[in-house]
Amino acid sequence: MGSAPSASGEDSLIARYFRPLATDPGAFDLNDDAAALKPTGDDIVVTTDAIVEGVHFLPDDPPDTVARKALRVNLSDLAAKGAVPAGFVLTLALRNADDAWLTTFAAALGEDANHFGCPLLGGDTVSTPGPLMISITAFGRVPDGKMVHRSGARPGDRVVVTGTIGDAALGLAVLGGGKVHAAVSDAAARHLLINRYRVPQPRMALAEIVREYASAAMDVSDGLAGDLTKLCGVSGVSAVIDLDSIPLSDAARDLLSRGVVGIETLIVGGDDYEILCTVADDRVEAFTQAAQRAGVALSSIGMVVAETSAPKFLDRQGTEIALKRRSYSHF
Amino acid sequence: MGSAPSASGEDSLIARYFRPLATDPGAFDLNDDAAALKPTGDDIVVTTDAIVEGVHFLPDDPPDTVARKALRVNLSDLAAKGAVPAGFVLTLALRNADDAWLTTFAAALGEDANHFGCPLLGGDTVSTPGPLMISITAFGRVPDGKMVHRSGARPGDRVVVTGTIGDAALGLAVLGGGKVHAAVSDAAARHLLINRYRVPQPRMALAEIVREYASAAMDVSDGLAGDLTKLCGVSGVSAVIDLDSIPLSDAARDLLSRGVVGIETLIVGGDDYEILCTVADDRVEAFTQAAQRAGVALSSIGMVVAETSAPKFLDRQGTEIALKRRSYSHF
Repeated sequence: MGSAPSASGEDSLIARYFRPLATDPGAFDLNDDAAALKPTGDDIVVTTDAIVEGVHFLPDDPPDTVARKALRVNLSDLAAKGAVPAGFVLTLALRNADDAWLTTFAAALGEDANHFGCPLLGGDTVSTPGPLMISITAFGRVPDGKMVHRSGARPGDRVVVTGTIGDAALGLAVLGGGKVHAAVSDAAARHLLINRYRVPQPRMALAEIVREYASAAMDVSDGLAGDLTKLCGVSGVSAVIDLDSIPLSDAARDLLSRGVVGIETLIVGGDDYEILCTVADDRVEAFTQAAQRAGVALSSIGMVVAETSAPKFLDRQGTEIALKRRSYSHF
Repeated sequence: MGSAPSASGEDSLIARYFRPLATDPGAFDLNDDAAALKPTGDDIVVTTDAIVEGVHFLPDDPPDTVARKALRVNLSDLAAKGAVPAGFVLTLALRNADDAWLTTFAAALGEDANHFGCPLLGGDTVSTPGPLMISITAFGRVPDGKMVHRSGARPGDRVVVTGTIGDAALGLAVLGGGKVHAAVSDAAARHLLINRYRVPQPRMALAEIVREYASAAMDVSDGLAGDLTKLCGVSGVSAVIDLDSIPLSDAARDLLSRGVVGIETLIVGGDDYEILCTVADDRVEAFTQAAQRAGVALSSIGMVVAETSAPKFLDRQGTEIALKRRSYSHF
């Protein structure tokens, strides 16, 4: 509609910034009211996650990292469900149409969409007097009935997590300018932590492996402790976690050893976007090797047990630590 | 998660208000990170539309009408594309969790989901310091390749519209308290106009009929003049519209005849959520009869012509009226 006689501002905006991203034939060049997903015989996995300025990202976060975070928090859900990306729709609520911001935002979104094989299929752009908000609904595919659920954890399963935990919470703390900011003087460590907050690394390489091995899985978005509590709750089980086994980055380990933060900060902080899953004990080794071949580090951090209480987190002495809260909650 | 030991506020909110709506097996009782849509061999039509407080609805609009509008603006897109509803995901950005508001909102959303056969599949609830925002992505099904596009209008086709045009714009004007408010003294007329603004009536009964007869279709959300301009632009054609043929409610006709508003107010105002389509001249009669059997009134308002200029709107004397603007635009 960019060349139409009366293209509205909204249409021009879509044509200018987002049409180049709509590479899938089912997006109809964003010239229609809807997109079409073709049937392949697979189930279509649907996930939706929104990020709000001042809540999920900071007002002065660069537009390219905001774009990547908006898409990646959704991709992370697809990976944890064992799904291969198929596309996404975008709702963008903007105070105004800022050319420079939109150019950078759209370019980064397009790069990520291309990199992760998840094309833009459609969207809606609206004005808001309030904070910037980006809501994405993403689609993936899994063979019939093969979506990995939260509900399949069984007593005796191992609890496994990818990557490292707590870095994003520390990154947010660095940006907040308090004691963590003061304690991280090394520029590389600072950059690593901030980047973990701003730009999640969805574990797409693990999607099909999770589908093959995990009895239950979810992504860690609201904090490891709270998310494990949710997974166990839906599965009707509990878990015992060995705090020493939780994988930490060097930067996090350093802050922990110096007493700048406690372990609770790391396991209740959000925004990790790692995969948390449970795996039958006799399949953990094969799972770990398959993940290694895919370039993803796994850590076994505990065991699923036949209880209904909240999961326990044990220190080196085997003593349960008390958690004042388990996760980030909006309300 | 409502009974889990550490259910967060967000999880409790979802369990309490929205789980009862998640009747589809693919919603997994909202206990998972994603939903699953089963393949049926049909294409899945995907549309997404958000409504923002103060932009698409008024701060004191009742929560039940806000819920219905949020879902129905999406259903209206599905109907115009010839798609039968399959489900939706909901993103709700709230300043706080107000029990009374959420109870009424969720009940009305559930009623509509049930009435239109479009179950809640999943969602995300986030806090915002800004205005309330509801973003919905809705799914429908059409046989392979049968989605009705904006781009199929051909010279000689008739331009057809459902229902009446302009009532929602008048309803908003009544709520605004200006001259239109003063001019509508009849309580029934006032209620009709306000209700047309707050609660769209998506033309679901016409979905399969549009699929059978229309060469191009879209729903009228940003004003008839602008939306027709978009449809013509994408189709590479223009249109000539007879203003006298545009269907109006008695209330709108009364205000027009008394000179309270001009025709421009009616055809550039938004929120009609009627279906605008083009139909081959020799199929209009059969189309009209099929629509009548489905209980939907159609009006033929003009003709598609082989030009690339913007559509012309002709008065009784055949003179083109000048439009200062053609539609609502956010930017």
